[in-house]
Amino acid sequence: MNVVALSGGIGGAKLAAGLARIVPADQLMLVANTGDDFVHLGLHVSPDIDTLLYTLSGKGDPVRGWGRAGETWSFMAALRELNAEDWFLLGDKDLAIHVLRTQALRDGASLSEVTETLASRLGVTVRVCPMSDDPVRTTIRSEQGLLPFQEYFVRLRCKPRVQGIQFDHCTRATPSAAMMQALGNPDLSAVILCPSNPYLSINPILSIPGVRRALKACAAPVVAVSPIVGGQSLKGPTAKIMSELGQEVSARTVAEGYADFLDGFLIDRADRALIPELEAMGVSVNAADIVMQSEEQKIEVARKVLAFADRLDRR
Amino acid sequence: MNVVALSGGIGGAKLAAGLARIVPADQLMLVANTGDDFVHLGLHVSPDIDTLLYTLSGKGDPVRGWGRAGETWSFMAALRELNAEDWFLLGDKDLAIHVLRTQALRDGASLSEVTETLASRLGVTVRVCPMSDDPVRTTIRSEQGLLPFQEYFVRLRCKPRVQGIQFDHCTRATPSAAMMQALGNPDLSAVILCPSNPYLSINPILSIPGVRRALKACAAPVVAVSPIVGGQSLKGPTAKIMSELGQEVSARTVAEGYADFLDGFLIDRADRALIPELEAMGVSVNAADIVMQSEEQKIEVARKVLAFADRLDRR
Repeated sequence: MNVVALSGGIGGAKLAAGLARIVPADQLMLVANTGDDFVHLGLHVSPDIDTLLYTLSGKGDPVRGWGRAGETWSFMAALRELNAEDWFLLGDKDLAIHVLRTQALRDGASLSEVTETLASRLGVTVRVCPMSDDPVRTTIRSEQGLLPFQEYFVRLRCKPRVQGIQFDHCTRATPSAAMMQALGNPDLSAVILCPSNPYLSINPILSIPGVRRALKACAAPVVAVSPIVGGQSLKGPTAKIMSELGQEVSARTVAEGYADFLDGFLIDRADRALIPELEAMGVSVNAADIVMQSEEQKIEVARKVLAFADRLDRR
Repeated sequence: MNVVALSGGIGGAKLAAGLARIVPADQLMLVANTGDDFVHLGLHVSPDIDTLLYTLSGKGDPVRGWGRAGETWSFMAALRELNAEDWFLLGDKDLAIHVLRTQALRDGASLSEVTETLASRLGVTVRVCPMSDDPVRTTIRSEQGLLPFQEYFVRLRCKPRVQGIQFDHCTRATPSAAMMQALGNPDLSAVILCPSNPYLSINPILSIPGVRRALKACAAPVVAVSPIVGGQSLKGPTAKIMSELGQEVSARTVAEGYADFLDGFLIDRADRALIPELEAMGVSVNAADIVMQSEEQKIEVARKVLAFADRLDRR
């Protein structure tokens, strides 16, 4: 693998889709956050893996950004009729992946193996790995107490004030062997942190023992794409959480969180004024249009981040 | 409970629906065969319970006789796309009941408890019980070797020649406590064997230790409705199996299987010629139009079987 990208769901998958269009499939590895995974109605749901798989296979819903295009909702209607929990949406097509994953995990397969099988069946040629085969569970410390991630994110729509975030069981988790091998590759050319929520999507990956060290030690430059543009989240509650945690809502806060291993930071032109202070942190900075809506923009940002990494030399 | 009816799926559910229309809900218990139950894609499917629940709640598909009306099939389409097993049809709405049942069983509920909950949520007021909370699995001994029921019935469409039928784990199973209590009720007024396949739907119930004895000992007459009309199955492979097992394809063969506890046998007018030999077996016989297509016919046959039972006196 020459390019490794760490990603959460919707936001990260946009850059992942761009990368997949320009990096040969056998040279790109996407590492998915699994801190959002949970067992719902007895089914193992891996939202970020699924968003990556659906996006990369072209089966994703381009408007919602999650789930499948042309989805139907009869299962949800039947659940409601049966007075069962309906706060987490499971589409009828989408259910297939959850049912098959749950069955395979119960039969003893690892999440990595299951993900590889599902990717292959969906026609995804890029390697997609969960960050770990062990359960790491993102939990929100909030004014309403401890909230499992999906309770906070979906059921409560990110409304409770966040006081802290923890990644349950992270110290006992082993990082993905494929990821660690890729990061240890002497021919690695770039590690990319997708513009995903640092708190909810990237930090769970970084919480696994050995991952930060591997990012520090790897042969290739590590480049992050900012999820904050002009003091706003590109997607989701990043800015809200930043502010609730008493941090400045700024790309700088993102860079600070990654400072120990970050070589390059791709920010939006709107944040050019931050360049001096970011460079003072010892990080190379590049400013460009990083908002991705169209397929062309995804490819363009992917090109820019790879070209940027190419100019950085870690050795 | 004053009336207990033993039933399989589609054929039995027709009479069950008729009974439910004329017996007060708190006086009718339907005991479902669970020999057809199986775990498919990790989901616990109870076909006969579901057919009863959907039929009684008015949510069943009246044409197919199984599954739900207005069903959609996106999940199956997604399974096929993922190259997963698609020989057993699971509709999108129908999935809700399988997912909820599987989750509840894993959480430690008994099949009886799960069935009661699902029935109540579907608005079914009649009591529906599985024949046992323990797994009894109907297995076909065929020219192709041992076949789990659904392999034989659905995947192979009943094509393999049947050499014998066994009910795996039946000797270790405990009969439904609710059924046994109802059968022991001194005020019981009738036990009805629905016109279900004797080999595949009624015999699994009878295979559980104590059930035949309870039918022999109960205070009420036991009346069966013949699933064979004029040497033909009313539904499914009853006649085919009868013939493959070297038995005469006749209502008499059915009566012989139940002879140790049967008091009354409701046959079709087409089989009136059998009355003398059936009566020679010590069984009271009544001939009527027993083919049920319309709701009116279901009610009419239910009325007839109850009136017949009423005329029989066991004590």
